[in-house]
Amino acid sequence: MPSAVHIDIATLQREIDDLGSISEAPAPVVTRVLFSEADLRARAFVKELARAAGLALREDAVGNLFARWNGSDPTLPPVATGSHIDAIPNAGRYDGVVGVLGAIEAIRALRRAGLEPRRSIDLILFTAEEPTRFGIGCLGSRLLSGVLAAEKAATLRDRDGRTLLAWRASAGYSSAPLSSVRLARHCYSAFVELHIEQGPVLEKENIPIGIVEKIAAPATLHAELTGVGGHAGAVLMPERRDALLAGAEIALAVERTVKNTGSPDTVGTTGVFRIEPGAVNSVPCGAHLEIDVRDTRADSRDAALRAIESAARDIASRRRVTLELTTLHADPPALCDATLVETVARASAALNLPAKKMISRAYHDSLFMAQVCPTTMIFIPSRGGVSHRPDEYSSPDQIRAGVAVLAETLRQITE
Amino acid sequence: MPSAVHIDIATLQREIDDLGSISEAPAPVVTRVLFSEADLRARAFVKELARAAGLALREDAVGNLFARWNGSDPTLPPVATGSHIDAIPNAGRYDGVVGVLGAIEAIRALRRAGLEPRRSIDLILFTAEEPTRFGIGCLGSRLLSGVLAAEKAATLRDRDGRTLLAWRASAGYSSAPLSSVRLARHCYSAFVELHIEQGPVLEKENIPIGIVEKIAAPATLHAELTGVGGHAGAVLMPERRDALLAGAEIALAVERTVKNTGSPDTVGTTGVFRIEPGAVNSVPCGAHLEIDVRDTRADSRDAALRAIESAARDIASRRRVTLELTTLHADPPALCDATLVETVARASAALNLPAKKMISRAYHDSLFMAQVCPTTMIFIPSRGGVSHRPDEYSSPDQIRAGVAVLAETLRQITE
Repeated sequence: MPSAVHIDIATLQREIDDLGSISEAPAPVVTRVLFSEADLRARAFVKELARAAGLALREDAVGNLFARWNGSDPTLPPVATGSHIDAIPNAGRYDGVVGVLGAIEAIRALRRAGLEPRRSIDLILFTAEEPTRFGIGCLGSRLLSGVLAAEKAATLRDRDGRTLLAWRASAGYSSAPLSSVRLARHCYSAFVELHIEQGPVLEKENIPIGIVEKIAAPATLHAELTGVGGHAGAVLMPERRDALLAGAEIALAVERTVKNTGSPDTVGTTGVFRIEPGAVNSVPCGAHLEIDVRDTRADSRDAALRAIESAARDIASRRRVTLELTTLHADPPALCDATLVETVARASAALNLPAKKMISRAYHDSLFMAQVCPTTMIFIPSRGGVSHRPDEYSSPDQIRAGVAVLAETLRQITE
Repeated sequence: MPSAVHIDIATLQREIDDLGSISEAPAPVVTRVLFSEADLRARAFVKELARAAGLALREDAVGNLFARWNGSDPTLPPVATGSHIDAIPNAGRYDGVVGVLGAIEAIRALRRAGLEPRRSIDLILFTAEEPTRFGIGCLGSRLLSGVLAAEKAATLRDRDGRTLLAWRASAGYSSAPLSSVRLARHCYSAFVELHIEQGPVLEKENIPIGIVEKIAAPATLHAELTGVGGHAGAVLMPERRDALLAGAEIALAVERTVKNTGSPDTVGTTGVFRIEPGAVNSVPCGAHLEIDVRDTRADSRDAALRAIESAARDIASRRRVTLELTTLHADPPALCDATLVETVARASAALNLPAKKMISRAYHDSLFMAQVCPTTMIFIPSRGGVSHRPDEYSSPDQIRAGVAVLAETLRQITE
């Protein structure tokens, strides 16, 4: 009886707004970097809502939160849903949050409708989907899936040299080994993540529901450039080994390369660009670039990566600047589970909500959960395709539709 | 009797080393940004040495320090010497410091030699020769000369939006109006600044003393670029309006333009380059550039400025990024006083120290003191031409020679 599930969108929207106000920056800006005071307050907010919804809470050694609705048959593997609440600097209210608070409302709605699921349902709040603190996205789900080894995670440092373990300790989390985070393969029978599209497709085509069949493959390069500094007045141009100018050429080479792959799906971004010493009268002696390259196909993505690396080496050599180039990660794309995709399609149809099968250009915790169990995502439209900005927006009606499809899907896969 | 002036280089070198250890960063790095705790400690160190040398202290409303040795004829305008002790991030021990501590030693040496000057001698420690805090160099001497209006100085803000007046208050300085800082024209009969060359000429030619005839004309542009942010995975390349890439092109255009003026003396540097939001998975929506352009001739410098502005506007327009371009200052070059230059030349000759008349490519407080009274500078060699770096170095012998010429010059101009 799909019609029996009533989504209380007024309450959910208020909760989304309340969570949006927990930020390191004044409204409407949302900034919640991993283990910042705002992140910790936001986690407490979610835990309180989960407890109020009758869920049993557990946190693992990297701060992933599991909030469980116990099913009637504990011998069956549970299902899972969830997303993240951390936010990059200067972000908005919906990215990740809709999939966390929406899942809580889906569970409350199913309870109100009298559902008694056979399988347990875990709501997962993933630690640090955003890469702000350590330069690597999906920290929590990478560790859950084993794609990121615990030993490597233990070496992660932020830009001030502070480790993940130090941050974890100051945030008050368990000192259990990071290796304890990893989940057994097939410990869940399914994972479904509700998320905003962060792209323009659903809005342009006026379709309320996207069902993700494939997630684009991301890779991150770090480039450390070391030139020679000096006084901006005294060092004449032919003598210069300016690290900023080498970095500027590399950023432009990233753009040129991804535009030339022939695939419109290849994107490349220099999102971090810091220079040393950063004084107006000093020739820059150092530059640090973080470069993100993605494609729906691993082969064209990797070809672009190789071309960027080659261009960067040529630029550094010509400018007599030292280049240290590191591939932080180059993940394979995720294929979603075809059966689960059809289940979501049936759920949408049962609710008379048109749905479109699509690819996700942004990557998500689902990319890594797909290594653990059958996985898919439910997308709702993003106004103007905008995300990672304060004006990111999905309407209450759009959110209600997404939560309703998630609830109906959970009902079907827990039967 | 020049030979009677004995420079106590051992004491002076120890004082230079002690002052070098007062820094915001561990040795050998010197970082002393205006009104930082390190800057205030360094000022206290200098004041203590000046008091111990018998000088009478006065500080003005922007923190310029005047330490006076009273002459026998108070009806005569005094002479002045001095420099600065603030240091950009990641700098060295000698820039500015040699001209402050060296002047104290010159005064002590003249006292030891029994000089009783007719004119008073002011040692001036100028506030914020380096532009780190407010993006504008020679803050103290600009206000002394009137080149910077007090009303404009009162509007200066650092990158966090904090004003000069707020910084001044927190540093414990007088709340007197900034307009009280300005000096009357010809209040001094001469100003002579001892400084490291910050360039390679004296070392290459093995000449111990440089006498500055002209100071290169600096200009500073600020460029604020506003593009459109978004998710690095979701926004396809043709839709982007990436502020970083526009900034990268502008930085390269600065280099190209100054290389093409036909004058080897034109230099251009993008020394500050900050982007927003600065997250690896986010298309940069904003970029802030600070560009320094200099030449020994105002006309070729200004032609380069116009070409850079034009290129920047073309780049911003092509990339559909908003550009706000501000000329923070474009100072005229300074001509040093020919008579004073000859006086320094005679002082060097009297000490059997070869001297070379030269231009200063770096600018200094002397650029602005030249608006107040006859001015010149004494340069000593910089190892490798290096400055604004921790390995900046001038040897004790080189420093002793510079201080001896300063002392002999002060003797001649106070007679």
